[in-house]
Amino acid sequence: MKENLTMLMDLYELTMANGIFYSKDKDAVCYFDMFFRRVPDEGGYAIMAGIAQLIEYLKNLRFEKEDIEYLRSLNLFGEEFLEYLANFKFTCDVWAVPEGTPIFPKEPIVTVRGPALEAFLIETMVLLTVNHQSLIATKANRISRAAEGRAVLEFGARRAHSYDAAVLGARAAVIGGCAGTSCVKSAKDFGSKPSGTMAHSWVQMFSSEYEAFKIYAKQYPDSCMLLVDTFNVLKSGIPNAIKVFDEVLKPMGKRPLGVRIDSGDITYLTKKVRKMLDDAGYPDCKICVSNSLDEYLIRDMLVQGAAVDTFGVGERLITASSEAVFGGVYKLVAVQNDQGNIIPKIKVSENTAKITIPSFKRVWRLFDNDSGKAIADVITLHHETIDESKPYEIFDPDHTWKRKRVENFTARPLAVRIFDKGECVYKSPTLSEIAEYCKKEVETLWDEVKRFEKPHSYYVDLSQNLWDERLSMLKKHSFR
Amino acid sequence: MKENLTMLMDLYELTMANGIFYSKDKDAVCYFDMFFRRVPDEGGYAIMAGIAQLIEYLKNLRFEKEDIEYLRSLNLFGEEFLEYLANFKFTCDVWAVPEGTPIFPKEPIVTVRGPALEAFLIETMVLLTVNHQSLIATKANRISRAAEGRAVLEFGARRAHSYDAAVLGARAAVIGGCAGTSCVKSAKDFGSKPSGTMAHSWVQMFSSEYEAFKIYAKQYPDSCMLLVDTFNVLKSGIPNAIKVFDEVLKPMGKRPLGVRIDSGDITYLTKKVRKMLDDAGYPDCKICVSNSLDEYLIRDMLVQGAAVDTFGVGERLITASSEAVFGGVYKLVAVQNDQGNIIPKIKVSENTAKITIPSFKRVWRLFDNDSGKAIADVITLHHETIDESKPYEIFDPDHTWKRKRVENFTARPLAVRIFDKGECVYKSPTLSEIAEYCKKEVETLWDEVKRFEKPHSYYVDLSQNLWDERLSMLKKHSFR
Repeated sequence: MKENLTMLMDLYELTMANGIFYSKDKDAVCYFDMFFRRVPDEGGYAIMAGIAQLIEYLKNLRFEKEDIEYLRSLNLFGEEFLEYLANFKFTCDVWAVPEGTPIFPKEPIVTVRGPALEAFLIETMVLLTVNHQSLIATKANRISRAAEGRAVLEFGARRAHSYDAAVLGARAAVIGGCAGTSCVKSAKDFGSKPSGTMAHSWVQMFSSEYEAFKIYAKQYPDSCMLLVDTFNVLKSGIPNAIKVFDEVLKPMGKRPLGVRIDSGDITYLTKKVRKMLDDAGYPDCKICVSNSLDEYLIRDMLVQGAAVDTFGVGERLITASSEAVFGGVYKLVAVQNDQGNIIPKIKVSENTAKITIPSFKRVWRLFDNDSGKAIADVITLHHETIDESKPYEIFDPDHTWKRKRVENFTARPLAVRIFDKGECVYKSPTLSEIAEYCKKEVETLWDEVKRFEKPHSYYVDLSQNLWDERLSMLKKHSFR
Repeated sequence: MKENLTMLMDLYELTMANGIFYSKDKDAVCYFDMFFRRVPDEGGYAIMAGIAQLIEYLKNLRFEKEDIEYLRSLNLFGEEFLEYLANFKFTCDVWAVPEGTPIFPKEPIVTVRGPALEAFLIETMVLLTVNHQSLIATKANRISRAAEGRAVLEFGARRAHSYDAAVLGARAAVIGGCAGTSCVKSAKDFGSKPSGTMAHSWVQMFSSEYEAFKIYAKQYPDSCMLLVDTFNVLKSGIPNAIKVFDEVLKPMGKRPLGVRIDSGDITYLTKKVRKMLDDAGYPDCKICVSNSLDEYLIRDMLVQGAAVDTFGVGERLITASSEAVFGGVYKLVAVQNDQGNIIPKIKVSENTAKITIPSFKRVWRLFDNDSGKAIADVITLHHETIDESKPYEIFDPDHTWKRKRVENFTARPLAVRIFDKGECVYKSPTLSEIAEYCKKEVETLWDEVKRFEKPHSYYVDLSQNLWDERLSMLKKHSFR
């Protein structure tokens, strides 16, 4: 049974909710957007992930008796409010961009509409869930791209930031492009098979490396992958491996699966190892490498001609250590007044990058009908539509003289409705379906957006109506 | 109820365990050490954390029926082995360095003795649990030191790497020196009170900042901390805050708690804000700042004379983003033969930093009796003792001519026994006791070890016996 995560929130969500409960119409409807401001690692795009877990959380929102008692002990909240929490029912509408979709800065990736009080209470969990998995899916997508079609396996559980980070991080890694994970629990929870072979301790357990290999090969003749760097790859590991392939597997009519190298100069070693294996009659024996790999090391190894079939990637993927923060935020963008009209709200800031895009909005992705490639995303007011039958003019929201007329295109709204008045109305695809979808969607991006070094900045524009509305609000707050 | 984490392991632990089960005496006793190779951020020491959760996990080790079914479906394991897992009972001895202790590279921080099969199965969870919390406790200790006595609050849940990372990360942050956390669940789980006030969305909800402040002050007259940067700190936020302090709190005889600034040039703003508050008769109103802070930004702000009472630190603490990996490893160091003798084991490597220290060992910390300061750590064979009544010669294990005679000292073994033949024999202190202990232990370190820039490399030496044993083993594997 999963732990109830309702209390995983920042205290201010409760103090604000209590404040709203006593001072304002607690059913007044608000609109909140989750969006992020920049792609980690100066990348051209991020990969959306975490929606299945967000749905799970929202479905199971409830305060337990002991939660209420704890909150009462803080002496911050009124009794009627605590009673409201004890009977809490989530009634919001929620939209989200499906998992596996490439996403870009500034556009809403989750939108919540509902009573302010409820929308306040879920802030931390919306952010936490989507930030974490999108971070890892984005990093995994980079690493998988660097591997140029070779398999990348997620090996990082031991360095993950705790338990869910290992299990859900491995899930996100598969969304982003990893072929599998060594994490048994993650594979079990998400319906796949885990990967893995042996540790150095296996080799050390026996009186010799040769004996350790022989026993392993006898035990696993159909999946025999040997770790060859406990003592010395070229002088001990590979000769012993070949001997065991010859003595144990060959008489059984079995072929070895591979060898793994976890230390040393991997590019140099793999070239030598490839030749030794080929010369010994094992050209089909795969070479798996690991040891603090990331997209840059993998790219560099391949440029130098390393002979690698599979990359095992651990700590730098599961922690996204090159940039370990996905900075999604959750901001109020509108409130509904008593007449049911949407009143847009803006957060101004002395950091202009922190100024929000107000109002209830929708994001469209425009695809070129000839190439199938994504041309731009356009954020419109929610009620606006984009007419595909006519040319559509997009413009840079900061440098408005930069304009482009788009013709012969398809406009697809990015988000789907996941909750309708508190009821879940979306069925998450399976993990392998999401991974497949992600691969296809990334293919719609131009190579210029996908490269690591100074990728092209994909257009995320505003409709004229939205742009006008934002400017008029900014003018009202023009301090300097 | 917490989820059962027994299946949170890498597949190779199961394939190796299954291999041992069928090929070797499955009750043969092994010794494994967890240790790490370098301190994150080039720091002088790390802070041990995670033992309470490790104990929880080890106490609850059990494979559920559905786990066994899943493992059977992988077609890798024998039926007798699966039956063994279904009836699994943990019988190992475990030693660990208590949480909150400063720890150094190379020394064992967790030691496991028991049947190889059992010791294999817990590798990932031992590492995951201790790596994560030690990473965050270490980072929190750096950030708290930079704040020079001012309170540091942990605010990072929304950027944590998933749920446990938020809850347990906040726990580790308190161990390392944070005064509290905004995470309600973490505060509840570990017996404290969470911190927090309002978000920008609160201010935006109302028709004006003034109204938003007024309503908040009426609701929370005893803990009134206002967020003053939604529109403009100096021209709007602070004037409105002072007005509300005067109009709402003063007539009630209440004093404001503080103001929070979350954007802009914080050093500049805090100086101006301090003066405005002082001039208005609120010299006791505290200033809390946040916005992607870390130890370097905090140190720099204080050098420039920023007027700050409390730092709210989020993403850079909860993800340890400057170096998001704590690289603890778990290595076989000895096996027991049929006669009950300990046979040391070594892992050689072409990366010399990856060569292990063999044998069943113990770590001692030597304290100078006059100053109370820690002089060095010495790793000995487990049966060795250090006689405090005589001078003791320590030497650098790499440069053995560097020697030092230690006199008038106390030698304290670092680790405590936490499991005896599978039974927990250790009661974790409370979180506040651990935090208090950590503070005291850090005080035993010389300032030279604590500084951020090129800290003194604290001595971690080997006893002569251990050094001799290691050398003789290395000679047997002298490839070049």
